[in-house]
Amino acid sequence: MQKEKDKAKENFEEYRIDLRQKDAPKEFYNILGDIGQDLPKPIDDTGESFALLQKVLPKGVLELEFSDKDHIPIPEEIRDKFKMVNRPTPIIRARQLEAHFGNKVKIYMKMEGFTYVGSHKINSSIPQAYYAKADGAKFVTTETGAGQWGSAVALAASLFGLESKIFMVKVSYAGKPYRRYLMNMFGGEVHPSPSELTGFGRGILRKEPDSPGSLGMAITDAVEYAKEHGGKYVVGSVVNSDLMFKSIAGLEAKKQMESIGEDPDYVIGCVGGGSNYAGLAYPFLEEELKAGKIRRRYIAAGSAEIPKMTKGKYEYDYPDTGKVLPQLKMYTVGHDFVPPPIYAGGLRYHAVAPSLSLLMSKGIVEARDYDQNESFRYAKLYSKIEGYVPAPETSHSFPIIEEIAKKAGSKKPVVLMSFSGNGMLDLANYAEAFGFDAAQKGAGKQ
Amino acid sequence: MQKEKDKAKENFEEYRIDLRQKDAPKEFYNILGDIGQDLPKPIDDTGESFALLQKVLPKGVLELEFSDKDHIPIPEEIRDKFKMVNRPTPIIRARQLEAHFGNKVKIYMKMEGFTYVGSHKINSSIPQAYYAKADGAKFVTTETGAGQWGSAVALAASLFGLESKIFMVKVSYAGKPYRRYLMNMFGGEVHPSPSELTGFGRGILRKEPDSPGSLGMAITDAVEYAKEHGGKYVVGSVVNSDLMFKSIAGLEAKKQMESIGEDPDYVIGCVGGGSNYAGLAYPFLEEELKAGKIRRRYIAAGSAEIPKMTKGKYEYDYPDTGKVLPQLKMYTVGHDFVPPPIYAGGLRYHAVAPSLSLLMSKGIVEARDYDQNESFRYAKLYSKIEGYVPAPETSHSFPIIEEIAKKAGSKKPVVLMSFSGNGMLDLANYAEAFGFDAAQKGAGKQ
Repeated sequence: MQKEKDKAKENFEEYRIDLRQKDAPKEFYNILGDIGQDLPKPIDDTGESFALLQKVLPKGVLELEFSDKDHIPIPEEIRDKFKMVNRPTPIIRARQLEAHFGNKVKIYMKMEGFTYVGSHKINSSIPQAYYAKADGAKFVTTETGAGQWGSAVALAASLFGLESKIFMVKVSYAGKPYRRYLMNMFGGEVHPSPSELTGFGRGILRKEPDSPGSLGMAITDAVEYAKEHGGKYVVGSVVNSDLMFKSIAGLEAKKQMESIGEDPDYVIGCVGGGSNYAGLAYPFLEEELKAGKIRRRYIAAGSAEIPKMTKGKYEYDYPDTGKVLPQLKMYTVGHDFVPPPIYAGGLRYHAVAPSLSLLMSKGIVEARDYDQNESFRYAKLYSKIEGYVPAPETSHSFPIIEEIAKKAGSKKPVVLMSFSGNGMLDLANYAEAFGFDAAQKGAGKQ
Repeated sequence: MQKEKDKAKENFEEYRIDLRQKDAPKEFYNILGDIGQDLPKPIDDTGESFALLQKVLPKGVLELEFSDKDHIPIPEEIRDKFKMVNRPTPIIRARQLEAHFGNKVKIYMKMEGFTYVGSHKINSSIPQAYYAKADGAKFVTTETGAGQWGSAVALAASLFGLESKIFMVKVSYAGKPYRRYLMNMFGGEVHPSPSELTGFGRGILRKEPDSPGSLGMAITDAVEYAKEHGGKYVVGSVVNSDLMFKSIAGLEAKKQMESIGEDPDYVIGCVGGGSNYAGLAYPFLEEELKAGKIRRRYIAAGSAEIPKMTKGKYEYDYPDTGKVLPQLKMYTVGHDFVPPPIYAGGLRYHAVAPSLSLLMSKGIVEARDYDQNESFRYAKLYSKIEGYVPAPETSHSFPIIEEIAKKAGSKKPVVLMSFSGNGMLDLANYAEAFGFDAAQKGAGKQ
């Protein structure tokens, strides 16, 4: 114990906890190995969705989707590519934010925004591109909304020498040019969805030429294009394999926290489909699940505008608006829920990944919802005092820290948060939310 | 020797060479300690410019500007803030770029784009904000074009609890909103220049209400505002103290290269005013200058559109278009040179820092100029194969590597390059240069 305390003290003058590339984890953690027997099975109610997935998903991904092994060796090529995109990411001690909360908590941030694409999404696109290549595919397809997932797929595909066809929701294609350009710089091919390239897309456009598109439509475009042209379709959230790939963040974080003799009392993060939060939390949960005793507190934050975790129902629902995929038992506000146009695009999803939903139903993971104003206050504060601009999604986790700090006693609790992405390409959204342009007009704007 | 080789080999499976925060350098390197006696002195031909600088520059900065000590201890608070913004930055072994050049060179990149502001500029704004605060200033002022330096100043000021008034060239204020928003997120106050806040700016606007502004005007705005309102003015390039602060990058890089048993044969980088290149190169030059024998090759790249290094004259010139600052002996294309509107805004400066100019005149540092097309080809290639988008300025260094690779023999030369910044906020410029929007129209753009 004394040794641990000394170690922690030794680190006190530093902010950054590095993990060298040679010490990177060599296995993924698959939570199905510990809770798989309790997980409600997917339902193929159309009689076609399983067959479709078998055709379009990479074989290796499909196998992992139903694996109940708890530790899965990471193929060397995947580990190599993780290093190429700046993994392991550091953990940052957010000392100025601690001061803001009266030094009542210790705050550690797992910085997923440090990857080259700027978010945790690359943790899953690299393995999926690897398995697509192993199948002999020449290209991968996927859908993207704001473009975080799409840029992660474009880069992963290029690193493996594959092409990528990214179907981007048309309204975002027009309104989020920076992430689209990023995909182009990575060598990705971006198509507005609904797309002229698929029968589905042409059908929509014939009826409604000005359709703004939706994530559900983009999924159908991407799946159909892969099916028709012999590519592989890759999935950016919700499914078991995706959550497993993203465990790389939590596995690194465990090593990093151990290296400084700290053990988190709270593991927190934001939830769109759940893979960001699961990626950090599950590797910490492992020992507790195996021991049958939960000793840490796990708290996930969503958007109050899409309150699936706090007001949704735990029931079977489609993961996609198009209803081509199997039904899953999830906390959901309904696959036809139309979310308001919030800036944290990554939180707009209607449901929570099956394994995370199960953990929530058992009370192992707690849920909070915060609205945009509450979250964005912290985005600005963090930028100013810590110097790093969080993604809009990420900023939804800060109010959890406020809650913890308010209740903290004399022993400082240790909080570990998933800093899911940076907000450099979301600056226009912040400017709009904070009225930067209007505020500066008085100062002589032309 | 064998031990060094083993070390290098051990690192072969890794891309990233970390330097832990506890091992960060504790002294700046001041090249004036080694070449100061040869450096032509500034000329105060107006009889007012020295007095003006004494009033508006932080006292600590002014003292360092003329110091001939070679090693300057870095105050603890500056070292602390460097850590807060993610220093030390890693060095990345660019193995895919090596493969592109037929594995004829080893390429190491000092990743200054990894700092929170995305460039090396923060290395100077932090020390200057520190010295401004030491003088009791409540705010700092500066000018900015594309916004790289402005965002570095906005963040540094906030970290020291100071306000910042950034005078941004009006045409960039309108056309580069992302960097302006970044300054706002950091708590900076951004004013278009020419500005209503100064007598100088009001004078210009009365005569020419639609003036697009210029860096020269913005300097005058910033200096006048500091003088009139009791703030301190901070300088983002060219002057000796600025180059010294930026030596932190090279000092880290020396430690990092030593840690893997590598010694660069070439030290390369791009030149706007020269502080980026000097920041990396000078700490390597030190031992050679002291020994009186140059053994490495030092090559700097500029923009062929502003060919100050290859076609400029080595003579006394003003560092500013407004001619309020003392004259310096520099390679220059003239303070009234109107550069074409290239995207690498940071390279548009008309002259080269005095100490770097001196080294060039002696043949110690070689110069190259490349045009935008040649440089941007590499920006796209690097993004696609290495996964990281370089700043437009940074991409001007890649053709030097091509030259080295073409001439390389059987012994692979080791190249160390300053990766001065990332291009995440320059994506719109790349899109325009590459015609991304036009190229995708055929694919169904609405």
